[in-house]
Amino acid sequence: MKLLTYKTNSNTQKLGILQNDTIIDVELLGHKTNEIFPKSMLELIDAGMEEVSRISDILAKANENVIAAVSISIAEITILAPIPKPRKNIIGIGLNYTEHVAESARTLDTSNELPQKPVIFSKPPTTVTATNTNILLNPKLTQQLDWEVELAVVIGKKGKYVSKENAMDYVFGYTVINDISARDCRRAGQWIVSKGQDTFAPMGPYLVTKDEIENPHNLNLSLTVNGVEKQNSNTKFMLFNINDLIEDLSTVFTLEPGDIVATGTPAGVGAGRNPQEWLWNGDVVEATVEGIGTLVNTVEEMDN
Amino acid sequence: MKLLTYKTNSNTQKLGILQNDTIIDVELLGHKTNEIFPKSMLELIDAGMEEVSRISDILAKANENVIAAVSISIAEITILAPIPKPRKNIIGIGLNYTEHVAESARTLDTSNELPQKPVIFSKPPTTVTATNTNILLNPKLTQQLDWEVELAVVIGKKGKYVSKENAMDYVFGYTVINDISARDCRRAGQWIVSKGQDTFAPMGPYLVTKDEIENPHNLNLSLTVNGVEKQNSNTKFMLFNINDLIEDLSTVFTLEPGDIVATGTPAGVGAGRNPQEWLWNGDVVEATVEGIGTLVNTVEEMDN
Repeated sequence: MKLLTYKTNSNTQKLGILQNDTIIDVELLGHKTNEIFPKSMLELIDAGMEEVSRISDILAKANENVIAAVSISIAEITILAPIPKPRKNIIGIGLNYTEHVAESARTLDTSNELPQKPVIFSKPPTTVTATNTNILLNPKLTQQLDWEVELAVVIGKKGKYVSKENAMDYVFGYTVINDISARDCRRAGQWIVSKGQDTFAPMGPYLVTKDEIENPHNLNLSLTVNGVEKQNSNTKFMLFNINDLIEDLSTVFTLEPGDIVATGTPAGVGAGRNPQEWLWNGDVVEATVEGIGTLVNTVEEMDN
Repeated sequence: MKLLTYKTNSNTQKLGILQNDTIIDVELLGHKTNEIFPKSMLELIDAGMEEVSRISDILAKANENVIAAVSISIAEITILAPIPKPRKNIIGIGLNYTEHVAESARTLDTSNELPQKPVIFSKPPTTVTATNTNILLNPKLTQQLDWEVELAVVIGKKGKYVSKENAMDYVFGYTVINDISARDCRRAGQWIVSKGQDTFAPMGPYLVTKDEIENPHNLNLSLTVNGVEKQNSNTKFMLFNINDLIEDLSTVFTLEPGDIVATGTPAGVGAGRNPQEWLWNGDVVEATVEGIGTLVNTVEEMDN
């Protein structure tokens, strides 16, 4: 199921399903079929995959009149981030593709050796922004704004000490995150200021439930700036795959429904280029993961 | 006002006020006085300082019978962390006391130079635990468990680009955090695994509203392990004071009600001692900040 959070002119946040370029209003589908469905993405995640199946079944059985009554054209809505306000910081994974480890070591302060364990950082909920919104460039803080396309995993179930073998049971679905990074904002080596500024986590446009992705470890991911390709790789090149990450993360933190794990970016970031390239006012960044969709964001320089 | 979150035998979380060793049940006070009061600490923070004053006024006017009916002995309740489930990661400040910068540089991988800007990291909501609970030591992850007493600031109001001069308007109150750190768990220099494990943020026991603290920049803070004093300093020695921190943090992140900022620890941590000292199974750690209270926690080694 391809899910989204959206708003209409009435400005209320709604949970929707994308079906052939049309949005199914999940709440309205409930009204028309005398069912009570979750009102938001987080409520649906809390309800779990069984609820996804139930909604899917009821939608499949609905007649044409019901479908017509609960459908809204994608042109009439505004897509929000799938989880507009996560319940904790996004969990970010650094240095998780071999070539990106090498380019980072050449140009940033990181080691050339492959990490022995996942490198973890975080991005506050205030970093989250939707497709078709602006990434804010604060010139007083940074002159080195960079891009990073990533597959993000959304956790569906509480878990501690999850084994690799069982890890997929804890996944709800997948989305795309552009892990925007201000390379000159590290402080005592910590990445949170570099990666944690408002709007530095464009997310979406859709959250695809795990049943729709045959193999999350074989998805192309790519990114363009003003139409020019900068990153192009595949999730099969992750150093620590999703199973590894869930096993490791869950030894450190209790994983909870709605947690978001951004699984790292492949080579091709601006910092790794010769000469280096950065994002500036008006630049359009498109981040794509196969089977999920494309996030489009424009850089906006603030005059503060 | 000295606030707390607690539970009784009925196991529901309640908001209380500590008054002469007695807890006032805020919800019950509302029932008895025909008022509607916030049900949780976060609801009260969202309602703001005006609501604190309103409750305070109504409590002051209540007669003896009402007070008796809404009071519960502190012996009959279990104190929870003031904010048991924060809405985002706790914002931690590293290297914010001169002597601690020096001891860290001697024994950890940090610089001996004073930071030019606040060093920021984060601790997930799953780190939060109450006084009189256990700090979990996972021997598979760490053999270097350390303590850090800190004054924590609770934000009361949404703010971006807050000036030092106006910073105190954005403070709701103060609590104590013991910023437990597994020194051998840094990954590529990132501190989140070191500081982010479950139970690594004992918090409380009380949240004191800002009107009760005459000067947050002149509070003694100290910590003992098994009764032996290890840290003893004063918040006046912070490198970046609360006003500085709020100005700086709010240039990076939008601050939101309920955000928690742990303002850094003074000298005396285990890593800085010669020989180094670490926490082990059964150790009792008491962290105190003047005017707020003492957090007591026991280390428990897990056999996983």
